This record gives sequence, C-alpha cells and structure tokens, in this order.
Amino acid sequence: MSDQSHLVPDTSTSGRVLEFDFPGLEIGVAQYAEGPTGATVFRFVDKAVGAVDVRGGAPGAYNVDWLRWGYGWPNLDALVVSGGSWYGLAASGGVAGALKEDGHRSGHWANLAHVAGAIIYDFGQRRPNEIHPDEKLGAAALRAAKAGRFPQGANGAGRMTMQGSYFGLWLHSGQGGAFRQVGETKIACFAVGNSVGAVADRDGRLRFGNQTIPTGESGIRDLVELVPKDVETVDGSILGERRSSVPPSAQNTTISLVVTNRKLEYAELQRLAVQVHTSMGRAIQPFGTLNDGDVLFAASTGEVDSSDLHPTDLGTVASEVMWDAILASVPDVPDASMTASGLSLPPDPTEVVGRYSFGNELSMDVGVAEGRLTLTNTGGRDIFGVRPGESLAALSDREALCTTQSLFLPAFGFAENDSRRRLVLNPGPWQQAGTATR
Amino acid sequence: MSDQSHLVPDTSTSGRVLEFDFPGLEIGVAQYAEGPTGATVFRFVDKAVGAVDVRGGAPGAYNVDWLRWGYGWPNLDALVVSGGSWYGLAASGGVAGALKEDGHRSGHWANLAHVAGAIIYDFGQRRPNEIHPDEKLGAAALRAAKAGRFPQGANGAGRMTMQGSYFGLWLHSGQGGAFRQVGETKIACFAVGNSVGAVADRDGRLRFGNQTIPTGESGIRDLVELVPKDVETVDGSILGERRSSVPPSAQNTTISLVVTNRKLEYAELQRLAVQVHTSMGRAIQPFGTLNDGDVLFAASTGEVDSSDLHPTDLGTVASEVMWDAILASVPDVPDASMTASGLSLPPDPTEVVGRYSFGNELSMDVGVAEGRLTLTNTGGRDIFGVRPGESLAALSDREALCTTQSLFLPAFGFAENDSRRRLVLNPGPWQQAGTATR
Amino acid sequence: MSDQSHLVPDTSTSGRVLEFDFPGLEIGVAQYAEGPTGATVFRFVDKAVGAVDVRGGAPGAYNVDWLRWGYGWPNLDALVVSGGSWYGLAASGGVAGALKEDGHRSGHWANLAHVAGAIIYDFGQRRPNEIHPDEKLGAAALRAAKAGRFPQGANGAGRMTMQGSYFGLWLHSGQGGAFRQVGETKIACFAVGNSVGAVADRDGRLRFGNQTIPTGESGIRDLVELVPKDVETVDGSILGERRSSVPPSAQNTTISLVVTNRKLEYAELQRLAVQVHTSMGRAIQPFGTLNDGDVLFAASTGEVDSSDLHPTDLGTVASEVMWDAILASVPDVPDASMTASGLSLPPDPTEVVGRYSFGNELSMDVGVAEGRLTLTNTGGRDIFGVRPGESLAALSDREALCTTQSLFLPAFGFAENDSRRRLVLNPGPWQQAGTATR
Amino acid sequence: MSDQSHLVPDTSTSGRVLEFDFPGLEIGVAQYAEGPTGATVFRFVDKAVGAVDVRGGAPGAYNVDWLRWGYGWPNLDALVVSGGSWYGLAASGGVAGALKEDGHRSGHWANLAHVAGAIIYDFGQRRPNEIHPDEKLGAAALRAAKAGRFPQGANGAGRMTMQGSYFGLWLHSGQGGAFRQVGETKIACFAVGNSVGAVADRDGRLRFGNQTIPTGESGIRDLVELVPKDVETVDGSILGERRSSVPPSAQNTTISLVVTNRKLEYAELQRLAVQVHTSMGRAIQPFGTLNDGDVLFAASTGEVDSSDLHPTDLGTVASEVMWDAILASVPDVPDASMTASGLSLPPDPTEVVGRYSFGNELSMDVGVAEGRLTLTNTGGRDIFGVRPGESLAALSDREALCTTQSLFLPAFGFAENDSRRRLVLNPGPWQQAGTATR
Repeated sequence: MSDQSHLVPDTSTSGRVLEFDFPGLEIGVAQYAEGPTGATVFRFVDKAVGAVDVRGGAPGAYNVDWLRWGYGWPNLDALVVSGGSWYGLAASGGVAGALKEDGHRSGHWANLAHVAGAIIYDFGQRRPNEIHPDEKLGAAALRAAKAGRFPQGANGAGRMTMQGSYFGLWLHSGQGGAFRQVGETKIACFAVGNSVGAVADRDGRLRFGNQTIPTGESGIRDLVELVPKDVETVDGSILGERRSSVPPSAQNTTISLVVTNRKLEYAELQRLAVQVHTSMGRAIQPFGTLNDGDVLFAASTGEVDSSDLHPTDLGTVASEVMWDAILASVPDVPDASMTASGLSLPPDPTEVVGRYSFGNELSMDVGVAEGRLTLTNTGGRDIFGVRPGESLAALSDREALCTTQSLFLPAFGFAENDSRRRLVLNPGPWQQAGTATR
Repeated sequence: MSDQSHLVPDTSTSGRVLEFDFPGLEIGVAQYAEGPTGATVFRFVDKAVGAVDVRGGAPGAYNVDWLRWGYGWPNLDALVVSGGSWYGLAASGGVAGALKEDGHRSGHWANLAHVAGAIIYDFGQRRPNEIHPDEKLGAAALRAAKAGRFPQGANGAGRMTMQGSYFGLWLHSGQGGAFRQVGETKIACFAVGNSVGAVADRDGRLRFGNQTIPTGESGIRDLVELVPKDVETVDGSILGERRSSVPPSAQNTTISLVVTNRKLEYAELQRLAVQVHTSMGRAIQPFGTLNDGDVLFAASTGEVDSSDLHPTDLGTVASEVMWDAILASVPDVPDASMTASGLSLPPDPTEVVGRYSFGNELSMDVGVAEGRLTLTNTGGRDIFGVRPGESLAALSDREALCTTQSLFLPAFGFAENDSRRRLVLNPGPWQQAGTATR
Repeated sequence: MSDQSHLVPDTSTSGRVLEFDFPGLEIGVAQYAEGPTGATVFRFVDKAVGAVDVRGGAPGAYNVDWLRWGYGWPNLDALVVSGGSWYGLAASGGVAGALKEDGHRSGHWANLAHVAGAIIYDFGQRRPNEIHPDEKLGAAALRAAKAGRFPQGANGAGRMTMQGSYFGLWLHSGQGGAFRQVGETKIACFAVGNSVGAVADRDGRLRFGNQTIPTGESGIRDLVELVPKDVETVDGSILGERRSSVPPSAQNTTISLVVTNRKLEYAELQRLAVQVHTSMGRAIQPFGTLNDGDVLFAASTGEVDSSDLHPTDLGTVASEVMWDAILASVPDVPDASMTASGLSLPPDPTEVVGRYSFGNELSMDVGVAEGRLTLTNTGGRDIFGVRPGESLAALSDREALCTTQSLFLPAFGFAENDSRRRLVLNPGPWQQAGTATR
Repeated sequence: MSDQSHLVPDTSTSGRVLEFDFPGLEIGVAQYAEGPTGATVFRFVDKAVGAVDVRGGAPGAYNVDWLRWGYGWPNLDALVVSGGSWYGLAASGGVAGALKEDGHRSGHWANLAHVAGAIIYDFGQRRPNEIHPDEKLGAAALRAAKAGRFPQGANGAGRMTMQGSYFGLWLHSGQGGAFRQVGETKIACFAVGNSVGAVADRDGRLRFGNQTIPTGESGIRDLVELVPKDVETVDGSILGERRSSVPPSAQNTTISLVVTNRKLEYAELQRLAVQVHTSMGRAIQPFGTLNDGDVLFAASTGEVDSSDLHPTDLGTVASEVMWDAILASVPDVPDASMTASGLSLPPDPTEVVGRYSFGNELSMDVGVAEGRLTLTNTGGRDIFGVRPGESLAALSDREALCTTQSLFLPAFGFAENDSRRRLVLNPGPWQQAGTATR
C-alpha cells in the first residue's frame, strides 16, 4: 500500500550455508529488511532445459508455459522464487531485465533471456506489512549470484515463511538445499517452504528448528490421523482453533527445484519433475492441497550424457535429496538469550509507555495493566494476529524480553536506536520495529 | 496371440472382503482364470461427477478427456480398472456396451453411458500368457456389481499384479479398498496395485502379505536410500540384478479411485484428486515414476452438501483412507501346506518325466538330473522368467511341492485331473497348469 | 439396446476413392449395414510418433494420454475413428486385440500394440437404432487395411455422419482424405466430419454434395453472420427451429488426422497438430464448439529427415491438405432416380398399408389420408425426427419414391425382398428398411 | 542493454478510438516513445472469472496457471498485454503493484490483486533498440485506464507490431477492438496483432491499412497456396527471401481477449476461449504456428445471467466480433506527404553528411555516392535490417523524404530540433531519430 522506491535490497545472508559443486549454477538472494521479504535467483549461466509441474491449488507462476511445450534444447536462463504472493512475480521481471541490461542477453530472438518463476505468500499473520519483491529486488538477487553456495533458512525467498499452519503450528520456515553426486551425475535440490502442511523427517518427527512447538512431541502421523478433529485434542495445547484457521487458498506454498547436470530428454525431465514432486508428500504433510500453490521446476544443464543412472533411479535419488533440502529449509531459531540481546527495559517500565508507529497504518500502544506491560493495536490492520483494538499482556512484569501467550506474537521488547525508543515485536530474525511517536 | 472367444468370465471372488456403506456405488469383478487376469467395475448408479489425475509415465486410459473439461454435473456412469495392459482397455468398452444393452443407458445424447477406465500391466514375468480383459469380461464384471462389498487382494483387476519390482522383489499384490465416514461424508478409496515401487505401512515396513521376502526385514527407507546401488548389497540376497531388471515403461502402474458422497465443485474434486494422488508417494515408494502408468480417478456422488468438512480436510482424510486401501491390496499368500494341497508325487518320480503343454507355444519338459526333478522350457517363450532352453532344478528331491531358487518360479508340483497328469507351476492362486502331452 | 453378436462386419466400400502413395500407412474400414455405422483404422505398419490435440467440448478419446507425455520414439500402431459415440470406443479395443491375435504385437512390454482412437456421434436423428462399432468391427477394419487407398464419403466411421446441424441443415457428411507431396515430404490428411458447423470451400460456399439444401445458396459467411437469429430469416426456408435444435453436447464432432513421413521432434509434431487443428476453423464454421468433440491426431513415420521444409511451412501446407480432406468428406448423394431404383408402388397403393417393424421397439404404420400415403410412428422411439404417434404425409400420391416435407425423412418407398414387403425410409446409402408385420 | 530509469511513460493515444458500453471494464495504455513500445491494461473493476487458452509455440504468459484450475468465482483484476517479448512481462508486475499501492487490492489473502498477462515480440527488425515495458510502464497504463474507450492501431501493446512476416510482408499492425451487444449480453473482443501470418478480411483480401504492400493484390488464399514456394514467384516482387526469413520461434504473437458480461460456468468460459481462438485461424493465416506465442484470455464479469443466448451462439458471435477486432488492429499508415512533414533537406545535401548517433551502440553515417544520399550502419547492431557495415542508398537524389528499396527502412529524412540536426529513419509513427554527433 505504499511506494517501494525508497527500499534498498540487502543481499547479505545469515545462518547455515550449503556448499556444493555445481559449476554453471549460480544462486543469489536479496531481501528487503523492512518486510522482511526476499527473492532467490537460480541462474543457469549456459542455459538449461527446463520443465515444470504445477500442482497446488493456488499457484502463482511466471512465464512457465514455454516449459510445457516439450522443447528439448537449453533455453532457460534463470528461475526465480520470491515472497510477496502474486505481487512478488515482479521480481522475475527484474531478473530478466537485468540479464539484458548487463549484456548477458538481448532482444535478439536467439538471445532472449528466458526467466521463469514462482512465488510464496508471506503476508498476513507472518508480517504486518505488504512490501513485496519487485524488479529492483530481483535484479539485485541476480547480481549477487554465485556458484557453489546456498544460504539455508531465513534467506531470500525463504526470509519470512512459515510451515504447519494447517495444524495451527505456524512454525518458522525458510529455504533449504541439498546436493548429491552419483558418479558424474550431480543432483541439487532446493525448496522454499511455506506449506500449509508440516515438515517431517524420515522418522516422522516434526521439524521445527529449535522453536518451541506449542504441542507435544507427537509426530506427523499423529497429527494427520487426528484430522478433521481439532488438534487441541492432542494434548490440550493452545492449538484450539486449527479448524477455523484452515488457511484459505493462496496463503501457502512450497516452491521447489531439482537441477541435474545429466542430459535428459524433455520427457524424462518432465517425468523427473512429477516423480520428485510426488515424493515430497512424504516430507510435507499434507502436501499439494487446495491451499498451497506448489510448483516444482526441473532443470538439466546437460553436461553429462551417461546411461549409468536409469532415469527412474535419478528420480528416486533426487526425491531423497529433495527431502534433505526440505529438512534443511527449517531455520534455527535463536533462543531467548540471543533475541533478547540489544533489548532493554528501563528501571521504570512506564517510561516505555506510549505509541509506536510501524508506518503503513500500523501502530501499537504500550501500556501497563496489573503491573504488566500491555500492547494494544491502535492501527488500522492486524499485527501478528492482534486485531485493531485488541490488547495483549506480557506474561512477566520485568524481563527485557517480554513473552506472551500469543502464537504469532510470542515476544516483544524495547531498544534504543538513534536516541529513539523502539518497540521490537518478535525480536530476532523476523522482528518488526516501531518507533516511539512521542 | 489367440482368439479369446472360448473364455468364460468368472465373477466369483476369494479372500477378504471390505464391507462398507455407500449406496449408489456398485462394484463388480470378473476374471479369466486362464490368465489369470481380470477387471473391476465401479458403477455409479445415479451417475457421479468425475475428475482424473494421470501421473505416471506410461498411462493407459479410456475416455478420460471429458473429465478434464471442468463440467460440474454428474455424468459418469462407471470406472473400469483392468489387467491386460493397453489391450485391457477393451473391458471398458464392454461395460459401456452392457449399460446400453441392459437398458440403463442409450444412444440418446442425454442418456449416453459415460464410462472411463485405466489399465495395469499383468503380462511378462507375472504370467506366461497374453489373455487380456475384453468386452465380454467388462460386461460380466458390470453385471456382477453389487453395493457394499469389495473383494480385497487377488480379485478383479488385481488378480495377477505384483509390486516392488524396482527393488527386484516382485511381490504379489492385488486390489485394496478402505472406507471412512466423517459426519455424513462418506469416503471410499480403492487401489489396484501393480507398482514398480514397494508398498510400505505407516512405520515404513514393507507390506508383502505372508510371502517370503527374499531380502531381510529392511524397511522401505533402507531400500530407497540404497538406490542406485544394487539391492543385493543389503544382505547378500538373490536380488543381485535389480539394476538390470529395472522395468521399462509400461510394465507397472497403480490405478486408484477416491469416491465421496460429498457435493464438490469440479475444481475442488480435481484438487482432491491431486492431493490424494500426491499423498500416495508415502505408501508406495518410489511412486509416479517413468515406469508407472498411474491414474487416479476422483468421483463425487453429490448427495451430501455440507460445509462441515473443509475440502483440504477431506483431502487429508482421504489420503489416509487411500493408504489403508493400498495396504489392503496386498493379498495373503497361502502357505506351502495349502498350496501343496492336491499335489502329489508318485513313488517313482520318473513317472512325471515328460513334456507338458501349456498351449500358446508354451511347454515344459520335466526331467531328472542328479536325483532331482528339473524343468526345461521347451516352448518358444519365457515362462515365469525361464527362457526357452533353460532349465531349473528342484531344491529337494522328494517333496510334493518342489521348491526352486527362482524368484519367479519358486515352486511347482504335479496333480492328476481327468486322468491326465498336470504340471502345476507356482501352485496356488497364481498357478499355471500344463497337461502331459504323452 | 440389443445384443450385437449376430452382426457381421462389412468391409466393402462405395463411392470415390483417394489413391495416394504412402507406404507403411494402411487404411481399412468396416461397417455394420444394420446401423449403418462404421469404423476406420489407420495403421502404421512400422509404428509412428504420435501427438494429439483434443479441442471440442465433448470428446471421446481412447488411450491418448501417452501421446501427451512428449516421448519422441515411434510407438503408435494404429488410430481408430468410429461411430457409435462413446460406445464406439470399443472398436479401438478390437483393433488392439487383433494386432495381438494376429501376431503383429504381443504382451511383451517392448512389443505392445499402441492403439489410440476417437469417436463421433451418429445416433439420434441420424438413424433410429443404437448399433455401435465394437471389438469385432474394429478388428475387421484392421484386417481389411491396405496401403494407398482411402474410400471417401459414407464409408467407415463416416458411414452415417451429418454436418451443419447448427444451422438446421443436417447435411449428409462422411470421411475425407487428401494427399500432397513436397519434395520427399508426404502429407496425408483425413477427416471424419460430423460437425455442428457447416463445411465451406475456399470461396465460402457451403459444401453439401448434390443434396438439396433446404435454404438458399447463401455462403457460410451469411449464415454465420445471422447468428443468433434463427436461420429461417435468411429466406423463409423450413429452417425455423435452428435455435431450439442447437444440438447439445456430445452430438457432434470432427475427428481428423495429419500424417507425414517427415521426421519431427515431438514438440514440432505437437505444434503441427495445433496449427492444423486451428486452421480447420476455416473449412468448418463454427468449429471446436462446446457441442463438438473434436480431436486431431498427428503422426510422423519419420522416414524423411530433411530440413528443406520448415515446420511452419509443413503446418501451412498440411492445413491446406486438411481443407481438401474436409471438402472430400462430403459424399455425393444419389439422385432420386437412383435411390428410387428397386422401389415400386403397387397399382393399388392401399396394398402397402399396414405395420412395418424395424425391430428394437421401432415400427411405422403406413396409411392413406386424403389420397396420399402417410407414415405414422407406432413404435416407442423417434424415427428420423418423427416422434411416437406423429404422422407424416407423402407430397404426391403416386410415385415410387414418395417425398415429404421432413428434413430428416425426406423420402420413402417400398420394395419386395424374399416375398416380404419392406418399407424403406430414406432410400439410398443411409436407408432404414422395415418389414411388413402382416 | 541500458537502464530504463530515465524513461517516462506516455499515456496519450493516437488514431481511431473504439467507443463502447461496458461498465466495469477499464482500459489503459502507456508507451515509451523511445522504443517505441507499450502496454495495454484491461481492468475488471469488480473482478471477473477468467480462462486462458495458450496455443502458439512460443508463449510468454504471466500468472495464468490459476486460470486453468477451473475455479468459478470472479478473481481476476486485470489482464496486461505488453511489448518487449519476455522482458515485457514485467509490466504485469507493475500493474499488480499499482493495484496494491493505490489501495484497490492488498496483501490480505482475500483481497490479492490477480493480474495475468502476455507479451508480444517487438524487437528485431521492428525497431533497433531493446527498450521494454516494465513495472513503471504497466503501472502508468493501469492508472490511465478508463471505461468505454479503446484506442485502435499503434497504441499500447500494439505500438510497434507487424504482421505478415511469414510472407515477407512485415506490415505495420497494432491493437484492435470490437464490440457487439445481443440482448443484454455484451461481447467485447480485443487483439494485439503481431502475427507471423497475414491479416485477411472476410473476402480474403489482405488488410494492410494504407501501406504500400510490396506484392500484388493477391488475397490470402493465393499467398497460402503458394507455400512452400518463395513468395517472389507471385509477381517478381522483392519478397524473394521469405523462406530464409521465416521468423524463428518467439518473434511473433497474437494476444487476444474476449470479454462478456454474461454469467458463464468456468467450463463454458473455457470452451468460449477455445472456440474463439480457433476461429481466429480465418482472420490470420497461418495462425497458431510454432513461430507464434498466441494466447487468448476469456473473461466474464457475470452481470447478466440469462439463457437466451446458447453458449455456442455466444462463441459464434464472439468469433465474428474477434474477426472485426483483428481487422481494426491494422493501423492507418500516414502517407508520404504527412510523414514528410517537418523534414527538410538543405539546398546542399552534403550538409547532412556525417555521423548520427541513436545511442545504445547504434549509429548511422550519411554520405553521398553517385549523387545520392547513402546510409551506412556504423554501429554495432542491426538497424531496421541494415547490418553493421552495410549501406543503403536513397532512390532519388533530392527529396525531403528519401525513399529506399529496403523493406524495413523504406524511407528516411532530416529534421532540425534544438538546433541539432537529426536523421529520422522511417518517418512517421514508428520513426527512430538519431542526433548528429558533429
């Protein structure tokens, strides 16, 4: 709802990095910290043959039709995954434009940049603003692309994603990658996870980084089998409103990518896409639902033309690599001692009382009630699930990191910056900071 | 390779039966015992809205295009699954013809029989003949259809199926069904399993009835993770040639069906198909490969128009019901004492020496070498993996049920019938009997 | 609504024949004269690469999904077009079975018969019975297949088709073929025309053989531009009820086929299918409607691998060849002197008064009113548009060939056969004969 | 190949305007004069149900997958057509962003802007620069949108298009619209024509505005029937290299749109798309080729829910309206006296000799040879078909408007502006002006 011209792309990364050996595949990320939101670009320096499998009920895809016609020659320059729901498709346009502007491609019919892309939804309860990846962010991600490194977790398109909302979990997610080489055949898989379903490992255990999961340790099987009962019946947790919170169409999605250097016929590549996409129903449950916009891209750089790996074996191995990529997408969540770093509460808590503006029609009033700090949404829109006019109280009365009972706004705190006091919601990688208005 | 006019459909069933409550859904099976091979018909007495998801690399489908156009009114009369690979599609034609001949439908444009169908491959190493379901068999299965009962295992289209060939397992499979009701919403799932992948339960254990599995007890996870190494490396079993035996396109398939009485928009029904089909990648691994011709049909009889079950919940529950159906598809395999029943070996084993004819260019010579009975393929084609000219020896020298080291022909024996001696290969539900020629 | 076991396929042809040079492409037709209805088989003796474009709103297609996966190797054995609406798909099954029974193909995974097919609707007002092509008819058509000859008009699947019903014209149609060679590249196109739209030549003139068209000579452009007004406004013809007679879904269809010996990538073949199918909107107007089930198959036998004809040129030339094929599909209609041959009226017309049975719940009573012969439908179903209980009067009182004002039953007469008198409706190629019951 | 940040969208229009009555449908255009290139936005103020039919061999489409899933509720906000080949898809992103920025839509899942789009190729011989529609241009076109008016010809996405290149014609084209109302049902059709094929009217005459067509007056039928011979054989025209100039994939496209206020089921809307798209093979020949990226969108605003127009009638009428729209897309071409306006040649022609820079690596040297002015391409890239190093001579020696034999650069002249002399290539709506460097 506001002009994005002042935003500056940030191409730094944080957290774990996958290092892998795949010359010709360059990966870059860029983020708008103010979202946060981001985009991830996978560039095939010498083009690749591409295929696509669109499966979810609410897809947003960019320039994918050509990939369906069965052409067998390498034409694909880049795949772009971005946040921002349908608005974020603009980032793909920025990647194409930058490939031309930088002289890699041109308007000549034989040298067009072929860029395809897909998006995930990272608005709503994930973050209380509507900043979206755009041309500028896409171009920045492209220009930051390098071979051999993929930043895991809350980077690029995975900057502000969540998984498990179907079960009311709303666990932080991100982007993940994994790599395996069989003989000469390289297989790299990547996933940006924002699924309605929850991520599970090969033992069926939920994967949620080091977040505190608001239910017991029940595995995915237990959760799934309870459907359609409300999940609260598992263990009396706070997950009482799963049913009413079943997310509507267009709120969730997993975008994934399997890349190989193995030369494949187009039909084989398409079959690889279908097999791997289907296999992902193991790592994410449920998967491919009406509420997801799942898209899988398959790409072959075609450097290795061997027959020592049957295409079905390739698909089976790639399915395992993809499972690893999905598991790697779940970011480590800093613990309280880390997120509290930099936060402080004055000796007299009433000093922080006042209105804090987050811009964009959003503001929170800090008050005190029954000796504890309270937050009241005084803006015009939801903030992390707090509706306009609603309040939320800190659980304790005197901690630098104030915790709450809210699933979407479990913590807040205060910081000084440029001698302005700031209210920091959800301190840590996904925080939102508002500035005191008085 | 021969005229089928003398074959008589057999509509009897054997083994477990699923009983369930779904008025308006009638199911019938018919088999040609001479194959064996068969067909299963699912009839919607008052028509249904249908959708289809074709996913495998080698599909064979009958009249499914109309199901893709998005029409929302109930028009589907029957779904037919049959053996016989592409030849077996003829059974679907027989069902349509019988609906007209019996007066249920006509040539009037508003009363046409809409029958769709799909097939599985049950030739090759599964059985040494090429009998296929045809018009006559399809019509018989339709006319045997009844509500409320579904025969599990080696019946109908599942009469001669196998699963797990990707791992060299070649385990007997069949057709399975499961049912669940949530409030008023009925969900019935059916699967005819003939997958290249192996069937696994929710704990990852292979499901193989009471067959002797020629490998250890490793679960599906262990098998999958070994790919692309040969499976023999697991435990030194006889499965040394998995790689070379990776079945080519068109040899494998799972055909499945999810039926609900819940009224759904066409788009919702199609999403249900996609979600459930994707979920099957858990129960069958690998799934949806280049080597499979997987097709899932979804059908709604539309009797219940409630909103108390979100379509995604419906998909999640149906995915579990489908897993149960797949598990139910694996038939119990009679143990040796049962399959040996009726077999006998004369006191002087040399009495059984001679040539036995199976018709259709097939014959086996029984001989004796080093004190043990031997089988030599003296016909023009493979018989259960024994090539023309090849021999196979019994492991022991004097049992009514002679066992061998062969994966595809693990046992044989002799029986008297009409005072003709018969050589019975693989005694039991999937046996082939040849008659002494002298 | 009756058993078809007594019917005997007729593989003879009548009318014009296209002779052309395309080794390896064999074509056969078979008909049930009792319908009449029929099937046409196009066999690729050494297999072909196939593609399909399903466009109409009411398709009926057999085993076409494999053709969509993009495989580039020749696997297609035969394409089958048949009458009988969805029931007629059974003929495709018969072709596959016969290829196996005759030893051309087998159950071996590498030697399966790949047969695909599609149907047209030739029931309803076209003929008052519901006989449909079945396994037996398909097999007969296959076995009659020969290279180099294609019977035009009312043969095979085109035996009982009509075009132009959208404009109330109901003109006899059929199957047409055309051939052209450019350098080494052979292009053969075939169409079985049963379209809701009317056939037009390159000058926009309606093509209706030598039938009497019940409207003026207005070209297709005039007819189309009048929509949605009733066509009667053109010239006061009897076509007053076009609107109410807009045929519902599933009553009309054009099935077409473009075959070349030019080696093409799968993607090129698919593009050829799309281009040619689109071009057919010139020769048939309207085309590809909700009411048609149009399917176009493209096949390449791959013998010529030259680049001297750009794929788009190939598409453009093939589009013209297809137009010629469509024009050739319109059969010559025998004139009255010919159709009257064999008919006779006794000196005392009252001798023919009585009931004539056509079987299958159908009967007509011949009477006399105001000096002219009348027909009254005394059966349970429509006969050529005459409803049960309705009557129709001859226009003149004493001609061997009695003509009427009916669009669907414009003529009738009487013949003696085996000393039984017969009432012949629509004498000529599309006649129905009933036998005097007393 | 250069930054576009300095470009300013121009939302003015020129030429004929279609006025029509369709409340709720707003149309806006924007151009970059420096291209020229542009975009056209069709906005559905209250959303619409959308469908898409992608048919050409080289499509570029934006966010169309959701339109394929069969959802029946109105969700589509805008359709965007733009120049710039795949780069121009960025304009669609700009439209989505502007809908959010302007407060029409938001990031709330129930209020997302659903924008879909498609592009045409207007680089290459059409204009010697690579400026493409981007976010900024798309946003400008949206904000200029108004109801009831559609600028015909060289406006918006049709700013720099050509048709007929398949026949070597390279005729100026543009965007066209037409409207018809039948009872309450409104039907508006729009087409942006950039087809490889040539535009023909209902009499088969080529439609080329008032351009001089470099061949005789042969109709489309004559041209098509000559394929694959070179078109020069028609009349000895300069069109000798049609074959070698058959444009490769991705150079041509027709994007079209049919909009109705008639409430339609999704399936009916999709059938409408298919029928109308197919019908366009009459107005553009050839159509839907490998070399085109044709996309048709269908949209229903759903205000009129009547049954007095059968969906097939709607399709037939809309097909005629679309033909009118295509004919309207061909712009009037200013005649020489108009394009010469503002041009002047000094008494001493040698005064204009020198180098003229067009920026972006492009320059032309003007010289004199044999008494006539010559142009020599001294830049690094083609300019209107003149290769680097090649020269072109004026036909006459002393006209303000110098004409040449070139198909792509038929005229040039000189003008003074800001006391700098400029070389104007192809004076008129599609001109390129270079500035004297000395």
